[in-house]
Amino acid sequence: MTHRPANPDFEAVVRESFARQTFMAALGATLDAVAPGRIAIEAPFRAEHAQQNGFLHAGVLTSIADSACGYAALTLAPAGYDVLAVEFKINLLRPAVAPRFVARAEVLRAGRTLTVARADVFGLRDEGEELVAAMMSTVIARPIP
Amino acid sequence: MTHRPANPDFEAVVRESFARQTFMAALGATLDAVAPGRIAIEAPFRAEHAQQNGFLHAGVLTSIADSACGYAALTLAPAGYDVLAVEFKINLLRPAVAPRFVARAEVLRAGRTLTVARADVFGLRDEGEELVAAMMSTVIARPIP
Amino acid sequence: MTHRPANPDFEAVVRESFARQTFMAALGATLDAVAPGRIAIEAPFRAEHAQQNGFLHAGVLTSIADSACGYAALTLAPAGYDVLAVEFKINLLRPAVAPRFVARAEVLRAGRTLTVARADVFGLRDEGEELVAAMMSTVIARPIP
Amino acid sequence: MTHRPANPDFEAVVRESFARQTFMAALGATLDAVAPGRIAIEAPFRAEHAQQNGFLHAGVLTSIADSACGYAALTLAPAGYDVLAVEFKINLLRPAVAPRFVARAEVLRAGRTLTVARADVFGLRDEGEELVAAMMSTVIARPIP
Repeated sequence: MTHRPANPDFEAVVRESFARQTFMAALGATLDAVAPGRIAIEAPFRAEHAQQNGFLHAGVLTSIADSACGYAALTLAPAGYDVLAVEFKINLLRPAVAPRFVARAEVLRAGRTLTVARADVFGLRDEGEELVAAMMSTVIARPIP
Repeated sequence: MTHRPANPDFEAVVRESFARQTFMAALGATLDAVAPGRIAIEAPFRAEHAQQNGFLHAGVLTSIADSACGYAALTLAPAGYDVLAVEFKINLLRPAVAPRFVARAEVLRAGRTLTVARADVFGLRDEGEELVAAMMSTVIARPIP
Repeated sequence: MTHRPANPDFEAVVRESFARQTFMAALGATLDAVAPGRIAIEAPFRAEHAQQNGFLHAGVLTSIADSACGYAALTLAPAGYDVLAVEFKINLLRPAVAPRFVARAEVLRAGRTLTVARADVFGLRDEGEELVAAMMSTVIARPIP
Repeated sequence: MTHRPANPDFEAVVRESFARQTFMAALGATLDAVAPGRIAIEAPFRAEHAQQNGFLHAGVLTSIADSACGYAALTLAPAGYDVLAVEFKINLLRPAVAPRFVARAEVLRAGRTLTVARADVFGLRDEGEELVAAMMSTVIARPIP
């Protein structure tokens, strides 16, 4: 799909907002790719972010997928807008066992008020990558007061 | 709804598993209530867990709601079983502005393999509590290998 | 929860809109209860609305739950507004075996633009009712052009 | 993605099951494509399947998308298995205005017990097709008793 940004400075807007998400720093997450309608956010496995079996907690995968969907929407928003997640759904497809993970989000439909995005989350290993989760999210854009 | 636990030691099982979720500790989350089919998990607002506007990141609310749904399912599982989230959906209803939050989960339907639970997440202030998010989750129970 | 309707004529608005949903008539569905923030829609089991095992097709349960959530939102909308479902998620909890079904929806959070509602769908038998499905839905309200 | 069917007769199994779904016939829906991990189901717009504004009711789009996800899962199930939807979520992206619609489902992850599939629903017009809805669904496979 081809996405046309309404704001030529979309990348700066997204990077500046991401830098204010202290929770992304707490997770060790980094903003990789920023393109019109597309975002990739990576996070490492850390022993202090595990669930009961030592795998990465679903909440970490969900957090980077949620931020990726929100910022994918923000790349297409007009200047002076901010985005908030209205809701999302995520399927956890396999145990999250890998040293690093990436959430790759893409906008499915950008509307004036609501944008729908999908994110696929992959475990990254030397041998290749494996899909571990899939999200669908609804995001609302609002003028910054 | 009345829920009958299959394992009389359900509370010990849940508390022991929760203690192994290092991510809950990283979020400052605590397991409050453990009852058949019901779980409450609290977490504080922390400046390092924020989104771009300084509110608690949706990923934090989602993480405690996800763990609450999973453990609500575990309270009803037979001895020797573990639970994993298959999927969940969450609606974010209001900005998450409060000093503390609680996710209260309840099992809607406990099956042999799959259990469905709902969690409501409230912001807790001196003046009272306010619903900030609502989750519905599907959890799978598996014998521990 | 107490819900305050913005339009005193909410019941007439909902009943008139429901009467225009030809698909509800095709399913044999009827609008039972209309109250502020709450709607109940019933539908019968019909052999021509079955899935492969002769149970009511999930699409029928979903259709009445979707309409119930939408109209629950409409009871709280200002005069001159219409509603559309943005998205919904439904869990199918048990095989849908009963002569009649009812979807009971209630608004969780009514916002200016978006309203979130839940619907529980019950199978109705002489012996009592049984929860067969649970939906969570996001609805958008728009001024009628 | 490449999907390997466990049952070489998967197409006959799917077509026979689809033929038993009386609700698909009631909607005028037809099973178009059957391939490993992929299903397409079409349905026409009909005036008696409308919502309040004369568009196709979301329940119709949802019903064909739900059946498409279920049958996409069934193409990969062993002989002697049946499938049931556990849950699904659908985003309604645009008003459903077109003479025909197609739901195209693909399996994202096929497990022993649970399979996750996505379906995109398109409105079909002479000028081309337009994405009107997107579903993500969890399906359970069970041996036929």
